[in-house]
Amino acid sequence: MKLGSHYLGHETCQFRVWSPTRKQVSVHLLSPEDRLVPLTQGKNGYWEATIEGVSPGTYYQYQLDGDLERPDPASHSQPKGVHGPSEVIDHSAFIWQDEAWQGLPLSQYVIYELHVGTFTPEGTFDAIIDRLPDLVDLGINAIEIMPVAQFPGSRNWGYDGTFIYGVQNSYGGVEGLKKLVNACHQAGVAVILDVVYNHFGPEGNYLWAYAPYFTDRYKTPWGDAVNFDQADSNEVREFFIQNTLYWLETYHIDALRLDAVHAIYDLSAQPFLQQLGAAVERFNESTVYPRYLIAESDLNDVRVLQSREDGGFGHASQWCDDFHHGLHTILTGENSGYYCDFGSIEQLAKSFKQGYIYTGEYSPHRRRNHGNIPKNTTGENFVVCIQNHDQIGNRLLGDRLSQLVNFERLKLAAATVLLSPFVPMLFMGEEYGEKAPFQYFVSHSDPGLIEGVRKGRAEEFKSFGWENEVPDPQGETVFEQSKLHWEQGFTGAGKVLRSLYKTLIELRKQKPALSRLDLSSVQILTASPQKVLSV
Amino acid sequence: MKLGSHYLGHETCQFRVWSPTRKQVSVHLLSPEDRLVPLTQGKNGYWEATIEGVSPGTYYQYQLDGDLERPDPASHSQPKGVHGPSEVIDHSAFIWQDEAWQGLPLSQYVIYELHVGTFTPEGTFDAIIDRLPDLVDLGINAIEIMPVAQFPGSRNWGYDGTFIYGVQNSYGGVEGLKKLVNACHQAGVAVILDVVYNHFGPEGNYLWAYAPYFTDRYKTPWGDAVNFDQADSNEVREFFIQNTLYWLETYHIDALRLDAVHAIYDLSAQPFLQQLGAAVERFNESTVYPRYLIAESDLNDVRVLQSREDGGFGHASQWCDDFHHGLHTILTGENSGYYCDFGSIEQLAKSFKQGYIYTGEYSPHRRRNHGNIPKNTTGENFVVCIQNHDQIGNRLLGDRLSQLVNFERLKLAAATVLLSPFVPMLFMGEEYGEKAPFQYFVSHSDPGLIEGVRKGRAEEFKSFGWENEVPDPQGETVFEQSKLHWEQGFTGAGKVLRSLYKTLIELRKQKPALSRLDLSSVQILTASPQKVLSV
Repeated sequence: MKLGSHYLGHETCQFRVWSPTRKQVSVHLLSPEDRLVPLTQGKNGYWEATIEGVSPGTYYQYQLDGDLERPDPASHSQPKGVHGPSEVIDHSAFIWQDEAWQGLPLSQYVIYELHVGTFTPEGTFDAIIDRLPDLVDLGINAIEIMPVAQFPGSRNWGYDGTFIYGVQNSYGGVEGLKKLVNACHQAGVAVILDVVYNHFGPEGNYLWAYAPYFTDRYKTPWGDAVNFDQADSNEVREFFIQNTLYWLETYHIDALRLDAVHAIYDLSAQPFLQQLGAAVERFNESTVYPRYLIAESDLNDVRVLQSREDGGFGHASQWCDDFHHGLHTILTGENSGYYCDFGSIEQLAKSFKQGYIYTGEYSPHRRRNHGNIPKNTTGENFVVCIQNHDQIGNRLLGDRLSQLVNFERLKLAAATVLLSPFVPMLFMGEEYGEKAPFQYFVSHSDPGLIEGVRKGRAEEFKSFGWENEVPDPQGETVFEQSKLHWEQGFTGAGKVLRSLYKTLIELRKQKPALSRLDLSSVQILTASPQKVLSV
Repeated sequence: MKLGSHYLGHETCQFRVWSPTRKQVSVHLLSPEDRLVPLTQGKNGYWEATIEGVSPGTYYQYQLDGDLERPDPASHSQPKGVHGPSEVIDHSAFIWQDEAWQGLPLSQYVIYELHVGTFTPEGTFDAIIDRLPDLVDLGINAIEIMPVAQFPGSRNWGYDGTFIYGVQNSYGGVEGLKKLVNACHQAGVAVILDVVYNHFGPEGNYLWAYAPYFTDRYKTPWGDAVNFDQADSNEVREFFIQNTLYWLETYHIDALRLDAVHAIYDLSAQPFLQQLGAAVERFNESTVYPRYLIAESDLNDVRVLQSREDGGFGHASQWCDDFHHGLHTILTGENSGYYCDFGSIEQLAKSFKQGYIYTGEYSPHRRRNHGNIPKNTTGENFVVCIQNHDQIGNRLLGDRLSQLVNFERLKLAAATVLLSPFVPMLFMGEEYGEKAPFQYFVSHSDPGLIEGVRKGRAEEFKSFGWENEVPDPQGETVFEQSKLHWEQGFTGAGKVLRSLYKTLIELRKQKPALSRLDLSSVQILTASPQKVLSV
């Protein structure tokens, strides 16, 4: 079922929106001429109409019960930002040139996570395209784009998005993202998109006006939880499932990274995440090459990966934070905050064998037992890294590993990740030891909210005992400071490190022992006092 | 790990209580002489001491941080009720005479649910013993006792208990329950105890003073949820797991009915209910005959029943409300409230094949899809009934089926339940068509709470459209009116019906086709307009 506005060609557009709580819903077309067209109520609270005389580029919003005007929850484009009107998009206008692309098996992915706004000085999709040759030269064959759903202002990691079908206008919008994916595929690079289904941003969330998208049954760090298992949750789920299919179909996205699935509260007998897994599996039955779901999960619960026949969710892979923490603590010696749960070479060895380090043991930081045993998994079920946006950006000063350890350790880190039996992921700039921080930045418009974000940020660092002053997330400085210095990868120490990354990636691709992600054949020896690990 | 007071003999008693948030915990012995003995802090927030000069029958409470005095969360006995002190119990004083009891396979159970307070005029465990011969004569081989955990006052269904290790003083306390179980086993009757792990009653819950037993992460109908997956939940789980083992070991209970497991909010990788299943399985490895967990679940989620190897909880059985609703709606024609989801003969046929009627379909009442498909289940995985405390007592007037349908339909109901391929359960008095209501009754002491219960009760009936005045749950009348008229089973129509129940139970036990609960061999024919179902 298509949600939002669906341009059919010939100046005709179909509108569909879910609003079971409203008695009357109209579409208010704002351009080229002002028109109010009532929608017809269909089954299950959906309202729809197919309207003639609507051109691509038309601005619109919905009028609810005759007065309240709100943008489309499934808006494909918000040219004026989160508070502005929605825009009708003609997706057929873009000419794809990626017919030759056949996808890549997930086991072969070498992922490069990037943030559009800070990857280049321009902060746009277009500007990324210019850097693809360098990434390909490095050996990267998949980029993972931090969320692009429309968020408030122009500076944001993307997890404050409120229009999950939208594409951030300041990044280049619909056209920009398509051009990037097209260029990636032409260059032999897969595109993973980070999507956020567990919460909505605090500014510009107009879903409340339409329907019970949220439930007070569960309390999340962002307030009421998304309603995945209470009354009317079928339609809420449909909103997200269609969103996944939308990215795969309309934008040729190869894989979705699902943000924080542990914050998707759902106790139903057929969980949403399982249903989503099934939807992608069905989608794959009709495509030339498969698409993947990669979950970020803090649960160490193999259910995410297990097949639906075994009661699992059937996702292709998940981020493996334990691997990161195990390696990070050995390299840095840090033991504050959640790092107190890690630090031994035996833990890292365990992660090399099966991903999770916590498979049911007591976690001092969590003050409870944590995780279960990942049965029947392979290396492609785990995405590993030594740096990512969270592990860098959620530090007080957003300092990268390059600021924490010496050059030799950076090389060791690279080898550990890239020669691991898992899917490796780099964070942008890591390959040449970028020294710029990756800080937390927002550009909200509500003063109360800005103050709230500042306070929340300070609160977060208490358990780490970091006492420096917290940089102002709303300020432009943290954003500007977080931009890469690309040229450093081609000179001096940066060049040396980049060259090592390139060699390691080549080695990984060439040696069958490294590219076959069979965990059962991994043999590990550790020597504890010396912290030696032999694989 | 033993929790609470554990009498070791020779005037010596061990005390252990979990209170990670307190700096100082003492046991205040109130009799025979007043003594304050500090406990020693051990691992994980447990405090303990082994104290001499303590006789069985000693009253005590804990003193927290030098001032606050509270009863023992794991109190075995509250002789003065929920607000009074706890009592040291010598469990070895009771002489068990049930050595010959070898248990019964769950598949052979014919269950009789009873409420101690209203089953007899006396409302005690002792008084039940006198009626066992009649129950055995009827063919009953398992009684299910509504919760006996200490609750406020003397009138309560039992779901307001606040001392889950305690035995309601007004029913006859520790000694009374043991005598009943002993007598049951001697009479060849198993004992199922209903326990409530999903919430605590609103009056006399002193757990808050001790430790983080609750979490505001989830919102239940009773307020904050029990903390099964947040920090310190290991110890909360231990409190409940030890409770299960306590009933099995100390009271020789054969099976536990777990109240409303759908209200146990737990998103962890190794859920509490799975851990509880494992604990009972381990317990069974060292016992002559197995004990069972029977979950009440509103989720229609087969995970409750599946083995732990398959990611399930490994419980032996669950209540099957769908069977009840499917049969009830056909017999009564009712279609308000949740009954609107039921009413067709095909639905009942489906339940005969696999328990759940909703296996993923849309439920109009829930306004979402509901349930999953029960794979690899047998008939013993489902306990079925046409009457139980909830289905009767949660009606406005607590009217039994005998008040709703004619005598022929009562007989049809009996046959449908007792010849089903599931574990059948009767509600006390059903076998002779008891006409007395089973109403909702409480005996709280807090006026605000009493008013709250009255209002909540009225609220509950809105969706049913029942407009009569709601009987006052706090009044003694509803309690007295709910008592059985046992003599009616031996005269007139009551005798006729009872005799039919007896015959049906005999038939069930004698015919292999009826006692072998193999769902794969069930063949169902239905004729819809006539509402005929042939099994």
